[in-house]
Amino acid sequence: MSTDDHLTSRRAVVAGLATAAFYAANTPAKSAALTTPVKAEDEELMREAIALAAEADFPFGAVIARDGAVLARGLNLGKRRHDPTAHGEIVAIRRFLAEHSPDELKGTTLYTSGEPCPMCMGAIIWCGIGRVVYAASIAELSAHIGQVAISCTEIANKTPFASIEITGGVLADEAIGLFHT
Amino acid sequence: MSTDDHLTSRRAVVAGLATAAFYAANTPAKSAALTTPVKAEDEELMREAIALAAEADFPFGAVIARDGAVLARGLNLGKRRHDPTAHGEIVAIRRFLAEHSPDELKGTTLYTSGEPCPMCMGAIIWCGIGRVVYAASIAELSAHIGQVAISCTEIANKTPFASIEITGGVLADEAIGLFHT
Repeated sequence: MSTDDHLTSRRAVVAGLATAAFYAANTPAKSAALTTPVKAEDEELMREAIALAAEADFPFGAVIARDGAVLARGLNLGKRRHDPTAHGEIVAIRRFLAEHSPDELKGTTLYTSGEPCPMCMGAIIWCGIGRVVYAASIAELSAHIGQVAISCTEIANKTPFASIEITGGVLADEAIGLFHT
Repeated sequence: MSTDDHLTSRRAVVAGLATAAFYAANTPAKSAALTTPVKAEDEELMREAIALAAEADFPFGAVIARDGAVLARGLNLGKRRHDPTAHGEIVAIRRFLAEHSPDELKGTTLYTSGEPCPMCMGAIIWCGIGRVVYAASIAELSAHIGQVAISCTEIANKTPFASIEITGGVLADEAIGLFHT
């Protein structure tokens, strides 16, 4: 090993320790995501998301709502838009942002027929959406379509700057049923 | 507890066990992400990403390249576009998809001045991008700007349907330096 190699190697070790400490510090003992019970309006709004999923390229749909009123709708348009990132949640967020200020997303609820993948959950977090309600879980979806095996709750729990409510399993059977039609 | 409550409770336990088994099964003992060494062209292409970051709303830039040739460029446009999801990587992907078929993304390399967040890494995975080269790590960035504490390598490792090469730390000091200007 040259001196340079030694320095590089030592630097890598120090950086590795700092990285491990960072991830450990950002894994709260108490969940940052609040798992909340089903609310009165959840089923009706989830039915809208599932109806959108039934028309989608892959069977996923989403609506963004505040106080029970729908503000934006999305459905998977991956094939029609030739865009693998056009998931239901992303399409709903893009449509919302085309008409509203991003500040108006704060405190909204996003209903989605499938638990948000890391891409969609990241977008939800960066947009300050306050609550996520999903039907089928990533684990349930993975029997039908390729999934990244990280729950949206884990993503939320690793986000020190945001707090988000999560409710799962609302009309999950209906959402999964779309994969059998 | 009513009979319904008992059934609901039992169903939740069964679903919980299935979910735990799913996540365990998708945590490979051997990493699905390949940590690869720096290639000859990496520094030059990273300099392009860092130059874009210097012009961005938040100091993040990205380029998508194949065989050393740049195919698309992106920079954080969160403020200008009024879109909190307009990260450098996402902007580069959207610009690429506006001009090319998504199939052409497969096997490309994405260079980014900051390690991809879960949103961007999810997009990278869904698009089939073959390699990610980043400068500053999420752990390093977190000293300067809010981050989701999940590495892009962890996201890749939890993705059973994709294999992606990852190289980190290329010109990291220059990328972090943009936060001090």
